Amino acid sequence: MESTMINAARQWRLKSHPHGLPVAENFELVTEAVREPRDGEVVMRLHYVSIDPGLRLFMNPTSHSEWEDRNEEGGRAVLVGEGEPIKAWGVGEVIASRSQRFPIGTFVRDIAATASVQEYACLHEDELLAVQADVAPLPAHLGILGMTGLTAYFGMIKVAKPRAGDTVVVSGAAGAVGSIAVQIAKMMGCRVVGIAGGPLKCTWLRDELGVDVAIDYKARNLGAALREACPDGMDIYFDNVGGEMLDTCLANLAQRARIVSCGAIAEYNRTGAPYALANWFAIMSKLATWTAFNYFDYLPQSSEGIAALTEWLQQGLIKAPERIVEGIENFPAAMVMPFSGDHVGKLMLKVV
Amino acid sequence: MESTMINAARQWRLKSHPHGLPVAENFELVTEAVREPRDGEVVMRLHYVSIDPGLRLFMNPTSHSEWEDRNEEGGRAVLVGEGEPIKAWGVGEVIASRSQRFPIGTFVRDIAATASVQEYACLHEDELLAVQADVAPLPAHLGILGMTGLTAYFGMIKVAKPRAGDTVVVSGAAGAVGSIAVQIAKMMGCRVVGIAGGPLKCTWLRDELGVDVAIDYKARNLGAALREACPDGMDIYFDNVGGEMLDTCLANLAQRARIVSCGAIAEYNRTGAPYALANWFAIMSKLATWTAFNYFDYLPQSSEGIAALTEWLQQGLIKAPERIVEGIENFPAAMVMPFSGDHVGKLMLKVV
Repeated sequence: MESTMINAARQWRLKSHPHGLPVAENFELVTEAVREPRDGEVVMRLHYVSIDPGLRLFMNPTSHSEWEDRNEEGGRAVLVGEGEPIKAWGVGEVIASRSQRFPIGTFVRDIAATASVQEYACLHEDELLAVQADVAPLPAHLGILGMTGLTAYFGMIKVAKPRAGDTVVVSGAAGAVGSIAVQIAKMMGCRVVGIAGGPLKCTWLRDELGVDVAIDYKARNLGAALREACPDGMDIYFDNVGGEMLDTCLANLAQRARIVSCGAIAEYNRTGAPYALANWFAIMSKLATWTAFNYFDYLPQSSEGIAALTEWLQQGLIKAPERIVEGIENFPAAMVMPFSGDHVGKLMLKVV
Repeated sequence: MESTMINAARQWRLKSHPHGLPVAENFELVTEAVREPRDGEVVMRLHYVSIDPGLRLFMNPTSHSEWEDRNEEGGRAVLVGEGEPIKAWGVGEVIASRSQRFPIGTFVRDIAATASVQEYACLHEDELLAVQADVAPLPAHLGILGMTGLTAYFGMIKVAKPRAGDTVVVSGAAGAVGSIAVQIAKMMGCRVVGIAGGPLKCTWLRDELGVDVAIDYKARNLGAALREACPDGMDIYFDNVGGEMLDTCLANLAQRARIVSCGAIAEYNRTGAPYALANWFAIMSKLATWTAFNYFDYLPQSSEGIAALTEWLQQGLIKAPERIVEGIENFPAAMVMPFSGDHVGKLMLKVV
């Protein structure tokens, strides 16, 4: 292997743990050389970095994270210490390799957010998956075929298990996970109610994704809107938000409802006491089940999810919009967009 | 069939819906004739009536009950209106019959609390199960082999699914359900922590039922006691209490914990706002599952549970203590004992 020494690669590091919503001062852009790969390692040139609300959890000083301590089945994502690179998923091309599995020119994505927010990542082959760049453009491998799409797929198919005719409510329905989840539920023959903030997202959910009812929680009383949209209660609540929205949904469960949680965006930037759930007794009175899961739970079955999502994508049965922010230098601005932006679908940073 | 007309049978009725803990004024003891059984019906002379905390839920004016609307699989227990007989499970003998399945002399128990708090019940055969009075004394058919024992059995075996080595925490551990649940968990090779109120119950849990740690929540800070008793967190939390106790347990879950709820005694007499769960995010951070279930869910599999519990009972592997209150006239006093009493195991009223 010839030397591919790169002397000036940009990398975002955590300067200080955010208190609440991250601000530019929490991050630091440094430039340094990329180290040579050792046996089994490659250097990946990142093309896109995934900007997910859950990244915020990695930035906490101590554990309060569904991602932590999750190395049982090969996946692992740990907290970021001050001065360390910001964890994030990425997709890119192998430009130097001491791995049989990933020769130079292979397109790869990382399994557990170790690619990080940087231009080049030196990673072990066990941290990577090959992506079929001919099957879908690179951003799709980070979105619908990556962590967020697989979260929607496994959360809906394996955890929520929708039956035709079920009323399925999805919060964060215009987000990277929610937008895929609502479309899968529609394909399963469900009546789908999407909750999102703002008229743009709601119109998009109705007109582009075909949800039966889109509720703009910023414009209406959510409880009243849910009672109207789900007169017989919800059979499935697919939760990306947590907190007060979860509480309001608990008050509107159908008998034997399944609550599936893969995120709680409302909680990630909370600095005070946690929101306390008043309506938990509905779990009892409705004989409901509440299951939290994440993408790592289904890593061993990734190929099943990727195959199904690829087929739907190629047949035009599912849409996977992306919002791409250009330039690694814009990471701090991009990092607040999941919490305040008006974009729909998957958010990512274009590095190259 | 000769006439077995009984002209003066005592029956407890709901005079007014309780506000908080039931008081004597909420109930009324009336005397009236028992009607003749019609085709498919029998008259059952009640020997014992089961006094369960969950009966309190039947006394609410409106639905807030895990028992309500539960007639899918043959079980049904509905709210009691003012002037109606108090719902309760009972065991007794058939003294008049127009049922092929249950001739005179058969011992029976009811499926869905329609026996009620009375001396005689005229019930349809579909509301009844035969009990083997030669296998265990009548009270056992109401306790360990009845609703509460089956709740413990199915909740532990089919819902919680303990694995050897699991740390299992049971609240209300000295109660009718909890005392069976802790013993099943011990038989499955688990480390068992029982939570109960008062030194008598805790000593009994340790010395008689063999739990590894008994926590007197009235004497100690529960959170501190749980951290000490479960340094690696709890794999299973079997909840009979709900409210603040559930909240404290949520703060001490192990990764992938299973929470199983079959009751929430702390909530049954609540008159103000519901207790709000502050630690619900632990469901997310620990990738936990919370399942509420009740006895009706497993009615079709009752015989499996009865067979297993009978065998354990006959082999002396499980204890099923009963506290028997004599005399149907003492129902109002008995009805508050589940919420304040110092008894262990199954509480029932001896009618005959």
